Amino acid sequence: MATLLATPPETPHHEDGLADEDTPFIFDAWYVVCLSDEIEAGKPVARRLLGINVVLYRTASGAVVAMRDRCPHRSFPLSASAIEGDDIVCGYHGIRYGPDGACKAVPTQKHAPKVMRVQTYAVRETAPMVWIWLGDPGRAATTALPPCEWATRAHGWALSAGSMTLHSNYVFLHENLLDLSHLSFLHKKTFGTPDYAAAPFSTDIGEDRIVVRRTVAPTRLPPLYADPLDIHGDAARIVTSTYHSPGLSVSAVVLQNLELPEGERTDHHIRTAQLLTPIDRDHVLYHFVIARDFVKDDAQTSETIHAGIKAAFVEDCFALENIARNRREDEAPFVERSITSDKAGVMLRRRLRSEALAERG
Amino acid sequence: MATLLATPPETPHHEDGLADEDTPFIFDAWYVVCLSDEIEAGKPVARRLLGINVVLYRTASGAVVAMRDRCPHRSFPLSASAIEGDDIVCGYHGIRYGPDGACKAVPTQKHAPKVMRVQTYAVRETAPMVWIWLGDPGRAATTALPPCEWATRAHGWALSAGSMTLHSNYVFLHENLLDLSHLSFLHKKTFGTPDYAAAPFSTDIGEDRIVVRRTVAPTRLPPLYADPLDIHGDAARIVTSTYHSPGLSVSAVVLQNLELPEGERTDHHIRTAQLLTPIDRDHVLYHFVIARDFVKDDAQTSETIHAGIKAAFVEDCFALENIARNRREDEAPFVERSITSDKAGVMLRRRLRSEALAERG
Amino acid sequence: MATLLATPPETPHHEDGLADEDTPFIFDAWYVVCLSDEIEAGKPVARRLLGINVVLYRTASGAVVAMRDRCPHRSFPLSASAIEGDDIVCGYHGIRYGPDGACKAVPTQKHAPKVMRVQTYAVRETAPMVWIWLGDPGRAATTALPPCEWATRAHGWALSAGSMTLHSNYVFLHENLLDLSHLSFLHKKTFGTPDYAAAPFSTDIGEDRIVVRRTVAPTRLPPLYADPLDIHGDAARIVTSTYHSPGLSVSAVVLQNLELPEGERTDHHIRTAQLLTPIDRDHVLYHFVIARDFVKDDAQTSETIHAGIKAAFVEDCFALENIARNRREDEAPFVERSITSDKAGVMLRRRLRSEALAERG
Repeated sequence: MATLLATPPETPHHEDGLADEDTPFIFDAWYVVCLSDEIEAGKPVARRLLGINVVLYRTASGAVVAMRDRCPHRSFPLSASAIEGDDIVCGYHGIRYGPDGACKAVPTQKHAPKVMRVQTYAVRETAPMVWIWLGDPGRAATTALPPCEWATRAHGWALSAGSMTLHSNYVFLHENLLDLSHLSFLHKKTFGTPDYAAAPFSTDIGEDRIVVRRTVAPTRLPPLYADPLDIHGDAARIVTSTYHSPGLSVSAVVLQNLELPEGERTDHHIRTAQLLTPIDRDHVLYHFVIARDFVKDDAQTSETIHAGIKAAFVEDCFALENIARNRREDEAPFVERSITSDKAGVMLRRRLRSEALAERG
Repeated sequence: MATLLATPPETPHHEDGLADEDTPFIFDAWYVVCLSDEIEAGKPVARRLLGINVVLYRTASGAVVAMRDRCPHRSFPLSASAIEGDDIVCGYHGIRYGPDGACKAVPTQKHAPKVMRVQTYAVRETAPMVWIWLGDPGRAATTALPPCEWATRAHGWALSAGSMTLHSNYVFLHENLLDLSHLSFLHKKTFGTPDYAAAPFSTDIGEDRIVVRRTVAPTRLPPLYADPLDIHGDAARIVTSTYHSPGLSVSAVVLQNLELPEGERTDHHIRTAQLLTPIDRDHVLYHFVIARDFVKDDAQTSETIHAGIKAAFVEDCFALENIARNRREDEAPFVERSITSDKAGVMLRRRLRSEALAERG
Repeated sequence: MATLLATPPETPHHEDGLADEDTPFIFDAWYVVCLSDEIEAGKPVARRLLGINVVLYRTASGAVVAMRDRCPHRSFPLSASAIEGDDIVCGYHGIRYGPDGACKAVPTQKHAPKVMRVQTYAVRETAPMVWIWLGDPGRAATTALPPCEWATRAHGWALSAGSMTLHSNYVFLHENLLDLSHLSFLHKKTFGTPDYAAAPFSTDIGEDRIVVRRTVAPTRLPPLYADPLDIHGDAARIVTSTYHSPGLSVSAVVLQNLELPEGERTDHHIRTAQLLTPIDRDHVLYHFVIARDFVKDDAQTSETIHAGIKAAFVEDCFALENIARNRREDEAPFVERSITSDKAGVMLRRRLRSEALAERG
C-alpha cells in the first residue's frame, strides 16, 4: 500500500522491512481464539483466524476441542453441526468425527475412511482465555503461553473480559498499543491527560519483548482511576506497554497517591491483556482482559472501569479503521514518516515481518 | 478453490476433472428463465443468466420475446423501457426495436441503422415454465426441451411453482439434488426420516441421464406426505433423482400404503422439476415446479406440500451457501473426499465439466 | 468493458480512442470540490476526488485550505482532526501542520521534521463554488477557471446550488449532458417535451469547447418554466449544451414568448453549471448551480425550479447508474453503436481520452 522511501537522517523513517497489511501471518504463536464463557456445552462455536475457519466445542469433560470448520467431505461447516458426546456429527450427511478429528462413521457405508480426517489444533485454556495454535504442532508442545498469569481467574485479581472486531490489520493495532504518545490526543475524552504526550519515556528492546515505559508524575488521574482509588490530588501514573508475542501485548499501569508521605504509598495495579488475533488481512479479533488489585470485590467498579477502558479502545478502533481505509483507498503514492517516539513500534514491525518471513522459510 | 489431491483407493475421491465454481457455463442447453406468470402484458422483465442480462416481454399475441437487456446504442437496460405493441422502445433515447431485435426507428434521424440490432434468444414456453437458449441458435432448433411434461399445465397433475436465488454455484446444487443420503440429516426437521440414509440405493449412469434410486420400505412417512394421503402406518417411499441436463434435475417420489393388501396398493406420485439456471459464478436462479397425482383439487394440500418442500429447499440453500462461503474464504489448502454414495454426483460433475470444455472447443 | 469494433459506414460508431471508465483521470484541470457553505469555520471537511482523499478548512481570514487528508506520520485522516487558528492538529498524535502543509510541532519531541509535510493543493473560491487543482501546481497558476461567472454570487442572477453522488464514471455524465436528444424520453415526466428529440440541432466543435444547440419553436414549455414566466401559449426554447473542461459543462436555456409581437419579445435565461468531479473510476461528485435572470427575487420560484431540475438529474442518474451496471456486470462481448446526434459526445470522449493520455506523457 504505502510506498516507503528513504528520508533524511533527522527522523527515523519507514522503509522496506516493516510489517504492514501485506505481511504474511505468523502461524507459530498462541492466539486467544475466544473467551471461556463463549463455549457452552453442546454448542459448537465458529471463529476465523489467520484466514482459516475454525470450530470449537467442549467434550463431556469440559476440555476444549478445536478443528477446522469444514467437513472434509463437502466443506459443510462443522459449526452448524451437532455435538454428540465427545464427537461432532456433520449436519449435511451425518459423518461423525471424534475429538482427534478422525472419522468414526459414515451413515451410508460400513467403513469409516481413514483419509476422511478433520485437521485439529492444539488448545490451552487459562480461563477466561482460550488459546489456539494453528502452526507447527511440534512447536506448540514446546512453546509456553505468553505471560499474563495475572489475567487468569486463578490469580485472584478482579477481572473483566471483552472482545471487539477491528476492521484493520493486526500490525497496526500492535503498533498503536506500544505507542503511549497518542493518549493526550486520541484519548483526551477518556483516559488521556494533556501532560501525557510530553512525559519522559524509555524504550527497552529485549529478545522476548519490547517495552515502552512512561512516567507521568505529578499528574491528576482521569476520573476512571481517581474515583475508585479516591485519589483526587497529585498522583503518579507509570505506564508500561509490553509487546510479548503476535497474540499478546500488555498495558500495565501503576498508580500512586503522591499526597501521602513517601513511606505510606501503595502501588495500585491495573493491567490489560491485549489479545490480538488476526482474522484475515483486514480484520482483527480483539479480546481484552482487564485486571486490577484494588477495590477487587466491587462489581460496580469493575463495570465502570471496563466501560471506560473499552470507550478508549473504541477510539483506537476509530483511528485504526480510518487509517486502514486511507491506506486501502488512497490511490496516490504515499510515504509514511516516523518520529522519535515511534522507535519501539518500528522495531516491533520489523520483528513481526522477520518472524513471518522466517516461518515461510 | 479446493485443492484436489489423489487419495488412497479405499474411497472415491475428488480430483481434477470435476466441475466446480471455476468451470465455464454450458450455453447450449435449455434453462428456465422465469415462470409464465411473471411476464405480464406490457411489462418487460429483467433476468440475468450465464453472466448475461436478458429482458423478456410478451407480444400482443402473448408470445414471449427474449433479448439482451442492453440497448446497442448506450447500454441502457431495455427492461427499464416501454413496450409499444410488439416493439420495445429504449427509455433513454427512444430507439425502437422489433421482437426480432432489429432497429425500427431512431427519433433523431431518418434511417434506422441495420447495425443497431439487439441480440435475441430462442424461447419456448411450456407453462408454467419459460425456457431460454443462450448458446448456438442452430442447436436450439434441433434440441428438445428436457423431459418434464408432467410439470406442465397441459398434463393435468396438481402443480405449484416457486423460485429462489441461491448464493452458490449451480454445480453444487446439482450434486446436492442427486444425493439422497443427506435427507436424514440436513432435512431431519422437514421431509427426512432417520432410516433414509442407510436405505439401499442404486446408481444408473446413462448417456442422457444419471439416476439414483433409493427405496425406503417399510418406513413411516413424514406428516407432509402422510396427512394428505392418510397413510399413518407402514409405507413404501421410493425416491428417484434424475439429472437430465444442466437446466433440469427431477426428484420423483412414489408412495405406497403397505398396510393395504398387496393387490390393492396404488402408486401415489409426487415429483419436483428442479430447474437450475446459473446466474453467474456465485449465484443460481432456482425455479421449481411441484406436481402430484393425488388429492389433486385441494388448494390447501397444494399449499401445505409446497410450503413443506420449500422449507427443505431453504435447508439446502443454507448448506450450499455456507459451503460456498467456506470454499470462497478459507485460505488454507483443502482436499475434498468423496464417499461411496457420491458416485452419481461425481459422475455428474465430471460430465458437466466435459460438456463445458467441449463447448469451448 | 465494451468491446469496440468497426461498424459499416452508415452510422458513426464507437471505436478505440473514446474515453470510458478505464481512461485515466485528467489532473491538470479545475474541479469543484465542494460548495462554499459546506466549509464552516473550525470544521474540516473530507472529500475524495481523482482517487485522492482531501481535507478542506478555512483559516481565520476565511481562505480555504486544501491538503491531502492523510497525516504523513501514520495516515490518520486530518478531516477527523482539530483546527486551531490557521493550523490543523492531527487527532491521533497531535502533530501540527500550517496551512502550507509544513509540520510546526510534534508533541513528543523538540524538532518539527521538515520531511513531515502534508501535500497541499491550489484552491480558488468563486462562491458558491470552491475549485481545486490536483495536478501540476505550475499549470494551476496559469490556468483560468472554466467560464461560468453567471453562476457566482457576484453576478447577481438568482442562484441555487446542490450536489449528488453518481455511481458511474464521469465520462458518461459528460456525454449525457452534451446530448439533448434524450429529453423527450428519459425526461418526459420532468422537463422534456415530445417535440424535443426531432428538433433541428447544430454541433460546433471548437478548440476550447464543444457546443450543441437545439431550437424547439414553436413549442409548449413544461410547467417548470411556463408557470414562473406565465408563458402558456407558443414559446421558443433554445438550448445550448457546452462542454468547457473536465470539470464544467454548461446547460443554457433561452426562452421566448412567441405570442408577443416580435419586437416585444425578451430573452429569458436559465443556465446550469454542471460541475463534474470524478471521485474514482466508478463515482462522480456532481455539483450544480442553477442561475436565472427572471423572477429573481422569489424564493418559492427558486425552490420550484431547483426541485424540478434536480428531479431530471435524478432521472439521468438512474440511467447512468444502470448503464454503468450493465457495462460492469454483463459478461458477454458488446459493441456500442452511435447515431448521428452522438457526434458531439463522441468528439468529447475522444478529447477526454487524448488529454488524459497526453498528461501521462
